[in-house]
Amino acid sequence: VKRSAGKAFYVDKGNYRHFMQKEIYEQPEVLSHTLSSFIDMTSGATRLPKGQAIDFSTVRRIALAACGTGFYAALVGRYYFERYARIPCDLDVASEFRYRESPLSDVDLALFVSQSGETADTLASLRYAKGEGLKTAAIVNVEESTIAREADLVFPTLAGPEIGVASTKAFTCQLMALAALAIRAGVDRGVIDTEREAEFTRILSEAPRLANEAIRLEATIEALARKMATKHHALFLGRGFSYPLAMEGALKLKEISYIHAEGYAAGELKHGPIALIDETMPVVVVAPHDRSFEKTASNVQEVAARGGEIILFTDGKGAQSGIVDLAEVVILPDMPEILTPIVYAIPMQLLAYHTAIQMGTDVDQPRNLAKSVTVE
Amino acid sequence: VKRSAGKAFYVDKGNYRHFMQKEIYEQPEVLSHTLSSFIDMTSGATRLPKGQAIDFSTVRRIALAACGTGFYAALVGRYYFERYARIPCDLDVASEFRYRESPLSDVDLALFVSQSGETADTLASLRYAKGEGLKTAAIVNVEESTIAREADLVFPTLAGPEIGVASTKAFTCQLMALAALAIRAGVDRGVIDTEREAEFTRILSEAPRLANEAIRLEATIEALARKMATKHHALFLGRGFSYPLAMEGALKLKEISYIHAEGYAAGELKHGPIALIDETMPVVVVAPHDRSFEKTASNVQEVAARGGEIILFTDGKGAQSGIVDLAEVVILPDMPEILTPIVYAIPMQLLAYHTAIQMGTDVDQPRNLAKSVTVE
Repeated sequence: VKRSAGKAFYVDKGNYRHFMQKEIYEQPEVLSHTLSSFIDMTSGATRLPKGQAIDFSTVRRIALAACGTGFYAALVGRYYFERYARIPCDLDVASEFRYRESPLSDVDLALFVSQSGETADTLASLRYAKGEGLKTAAIVNVEESTIAREADLVFPTLAGPEIGVASTKAFTCQLMALAALAIRAGVDRGVIDTEREAEFTRILSEAPRLANEAIRLEATIEALARKMATKHHALFLGRGFSYPLAMEGALKLKEISYIHAEGYAAGELKHGPIALIDETMPVVVVAPHDRSFEKTASNVQEVAARGGEIILFTDGKGAQSGIVDLAEVVILPDMPEILTPIVYAIPMQLLAYHTAIQMGTDVDQPRNLAKSVTVE
Repeated sequence: VKRSAGKAFYVDKGNYRHFMQKEIYEQPEVLSHTLSSFIDMTSGATRLPKGQAIDFSTVRRIALAACGTGFYAALVGRYYFERYARIPCDLDVASEFRYRESPLSDVDLALFVSQSGETADTLASLRYAKGEGLKTAAIVNVEESTIAREADLVFPTLAGPEIGVASTKAFTCQLMALAALAIRAGVDRGVIDTEREAEFTRILSEAPRLANEAIRLEATIEALARKMATKHHALFLGRGFSYPLAMEGALKLKEISYIHAEGYAAGELKHGPIALIDETMPVVVVAPHDRSFEKTASNVQEVAARGGEIILFTDGKGAQSGIVDLAEVVILPDMPEILTPIVYAIPMQLLAYHTAIQMGTDVDQPRNLAKSVTVE
């Protein structure tokens, strides 16, 4: 983590066992901070952070690129911008984007996501995009970083210093920034009227409360983590808004517990990964009761029919479906669809955290990993 | 596999141990068949299969969607169309495309890839695209299939009946069709002139010979498979044109050996999966000596430094680099970049095949998998 001299300060764990746990618990507060720079709390209108100006009505297409957890945030961002602003998006891992030489003639904005603002491939992608004459924007957590300095527009996440190598609060704050930007873009484009805008800002301001409720599931998730810690593999499945969450949940578990967890779009289950399913391969399913719930439910049945153990993260309505008998179920509060990626990220983090603790790994400094990847 | 009454015929394994092995060996021949419908062998010009007409010069953007192995073919297709025809491409797994409601206003062609032509999510995606008023095209192996009937344009792969559940020859023929279409599109758009067109058709017609050389590596790969069969995990890495190959190689191993193999863009290694690397996690690297070789080579060094065993698929020039001392190396013939996905697919197939044989699984009928996924 790079910190400028002017902002250096001592960060300690307080009463938490690890920085990661502390950072998980900080999420309600930092989500609120991050949101505050995107909405005017009195009028309920969206706005852009101070000094940043872009009119999304002229943006034909956005190219998104990032690495690791930032990439999964960008994947959610793609769904957000397409759903709420009807702006089509390209998406790449930054290490591919910078070399792919994709035709960019109809791309009006290149948007990068990086916690540190120093990620080597993301920085190189930003420079490549600038070289191609694109307007660039960055969602970064470290405002004095190279990426923040070089991007035309900077949308800061106000997550505060993140010390744990596995990103938690920076990720959910990235999602919050992307959600707010997508709504702002929808307003610019006339897709969202003033009334719906106010409704969305009200919804987004519910995120801290819902995040808090998700954190209260810790004891339930800790119990599940004890079982997870006996496994060597795991599969994470989700559809639509929950597909990036499945990817991020698997990455989190991989990073700190060293369990080989892999995320998949649930619809791909039958095209290969189902061959792996037996009693040794637990399957984590992210499935709020949204428009794709029934499809994901049928995947749960397929997994159960093959002896796979299932952990299902859903809501009250999902928990009323027949599939709950097939799974260990963690029930999250009901919430509008736009919030599900933000709030469902938290049980993914807690599952990885408590599994790692059971396994006795170094949670804040997992082997082989650096907090920010500043060389290729 | 659906076959029409008119074309029903008996397919046997001949002298091969499994259909999969037979189908791997058929690739030089069926690649040649598939190519023949895309080029005029006498003039060296590209053409479209009989009765199919599209002028790519008016295509602003192509949306690609498919499932499983077809999706990885489509991922190669995206690189092909962008590199050789400068047509930007969107790409989705079909189970996401059909529900995502992505804005399609600048998409002029939706292209689907399916061996059976009956894949449920791909068919639903085709119907969705038609409903949105898009021109549709399909690369299919079964010409009497529903997808072939319903698509506006059909580009057949002439791989013949594929019996093994894990796709082999259909995949490489899909890549051949995509390569030929990308060159044709480049010609239509004036990106490729007549001279380069003739050069490309000459290059593509080398594929059968090179595929044959790749097949001759079987004994070498069988020896490596004996070691692979003692593992429970594997990571597959590649960049650029080799990134989809890493994904497909992992899928193949997963499907028939039940080893938990996962593919990654090599640039993402340091953003998470490197935490998994120890002596129990072999890493398969697909790295012809192309423009991204040096970057991938540095990933090989990182893996080696953490005790990971490496199997490197490269060419003569790649084998002269320092990293060969860190890996078991399989040397493929030199070839132009456009052919690498097609030819490097073969050692991936052979590695999965021989690993599965060592493990005693049912190679042609792996557990839990169906040849074509005709229900969601």
